[in-house]
Amino acid sequence: MSFKITVLGSNSALPTSNGFPSAHVVNIHEHFFLVDCGEGTQIQLRKHKFNFNRIDSIFISHLHGDHFFGIFGLISTLSLLGRLKDLHIYSHENLKNIIFSVIDFHTINYKIIFHNLNYNNSEIIFENKSISIKSFPLKHRIETCGFLFSEKEKLKKIKKESIQKYQLGVIDILKIKAGMDFCNENGEIIPNSELTEMPVKPCSYAYCSDTEYFEPIAEEIKNVDLLYHEATFEASGKDLAKKTGHSTTIDAATIAKKAEAGKLIIGHFSTRYKNYDKLVAEARTIFPETYHANTDSVFEI
Amino acid sequence: MSFKITVLGSNSALPTSNGFPSAHVVNIHEHFFLVDCGEGTQIQLRKHKFNFNRIDSIFISHLHGDHFFGIFGLISTLSLLGRLKDLHIYSHENLKNIIFSVIDFHTINYKIIFHNLNYNNSEIIFENKSISIKSFPLKHRIETCGFLFSEKEKLKKIKKESIQKYQLGVIDILKIKAGMDFCNENGEIIPNSELTEMPVKPCSYAYCSDTEYFEPIAEEIKNVDLLYHEATFEASGKDLAKKTGHSTTIDAATIAKKAEAGKLIIGHFSTRYKNYDKLVAEARTIFPETYHANTDSVFEI
Repeated sequence: MSFKITVLGSNSALPTSNGFPSAHVVNIHEHFFLVDCGEGTQIQLRKHKFNFNRIDSIFISHLHGDHFFGIFGLISTLSLLGRLKDLHIYSHENLKNIIFSVIDFHTINYKIIFHNLNYNNSEIIFENKSISIKSFPLKHRIETCGFLFSEKEKLKKIKKESIQKYQLGVIDILKIKAGMDFCNENGEIIPNSELTEMPVKPCSYAYCSDTEYFEPIAEEIKNVDLLYHEATFEASGKDLAKKTGHSTTIDAATIAKKAEAGKLIIGHFSTRYKNYDKLVAEARTIFPETYHANTDSVFEI
Repeated sequence: MSFKITVLGSNSALPTSNGFPSAHVVNIHEHFFLVDCGEGTQIQLRKHKFNFNRIDSIFISHLHGDHFFGIFGLISTLSLLGRLKDLHIYSHENLKNIIFSVIDFHTINYKIIFHNLNYNNSEIIFENKSISIKSFPLKHRIETCGFLFSEKEKLKKIKKESIQKYQLGVIDILKIKAGMDFCNENGEIIPNSELTEMPVKPCSYAYCSDTEYFEPIAEEIKNVDLLYHEATFEASGKDLAKKTGHSTTIDAATIAKKAEAGKLIIGHFSTRYKNYDKLVAEARTIFPETYHANTDSVFEI
């Protein structure tokens, strides 16, 4: 069982020779979700040996080019690779028309299902039996959403020795996992707590790019295990951050602290900065567990 | 004085981890022309340390994604970098609407001037005092043009010793360079051939991607110094090449031979091939001066 984030890119808008713009792959137990899709995402997916056909859902935070200009190439490639199953895109409603202005939909063999994001309130946008994904508003120059990927509460684990001791059958095990006590053939009640261990704590990952300092985020992602929060500017760039709808290192770290996050990863650094260590060090003055979400870095929860 | 081709990418449509889709920079005496603009072109321009602001003209051969999906990011970046001067785009007429479906033109500080290509006949599409650029039809699944970049005939060079011997002034020199004889103060006629050396032969580069085998190309690019011709398939892929509107190694080499080209560079190889040496070797059976136009390779004429 894995919960792994691969940073395909976390550059800000201007290109560099050694990084790519925003795109993260979230792998939750071999379910692969793509978050943002900057230019070159498909090249990065290939480099990291992801199976393109395993990606069924793409989440686009907002319609600035460095967060979605890779979607045209990826959509075309999926078709060239013979994809037939549906692709789900969660984004601003305008993206649909943009995509079909660029790509002739007759050349696409599969169906794209568009889901419009809600920029006013948080909303569960995806759910299966083990994972839920919530979108929530960020504060940027244009409508922008963050995403929280959460494992659902897991069932209790049966202690191995209980199975043998009480000769538990499949149905007994399911009932006990669901929290029930066990009644043996003598009518004796064995309390659930004696038969089980607490389940592993569910894990979560939040993606917040692009946004200025926006306190409601902390509440939306409370107790998140891993938080990616943009930090376009150093603390000294506070005014420019506010003006451009971005965050400083201190803003990102403050959100992580208020959210009581487990770990913070920061990126989307302005190309004016060459020394990323300084940016990370600044954030660590507020939130010590801060790391650089560099292109090609991988974080496991 | 330089005439240099930098291959930013020459992949075919499917992405690879170690190459980029089509984009070449043609540097003729520090005039920079971009030919095709596949996804990731701006990253490659940065890697090769090109000054983005020196690119004033972009030539798009056809509207398949692997030849133009990088233009959105590049146009946006030029604006972020503060460009104010015009950008010229030579392409299919549909590209204008596509670009402005993706990019809000209010966010672009400079003017884009669109030039529609002629897909029926060759045409001079750019000219200044030392360079001319011609488009000519290729044969592909959709309307596609090749481009021929040529230096103009240079003026004759004055022999250094003539200047001193006959005390030539600036006006005399200009007249002699233009081919006139010189009449000295004694009325004596010094023939032009005695005063001058033949100019250096003008150089030329042709870009032909994508196209099936199309013999008229050879006439359009007769005696070209350097020819880039796509070679998507091995010789054994002849039928598939015809079906998909592409060329084989043998097709590319045959065009180079008929055109009496100086050197052939091939690329746009299908991702089914891992051994590029074999593709080059095949072409060399017809045209020995064949090389691989690999991503990041540079060719000087």
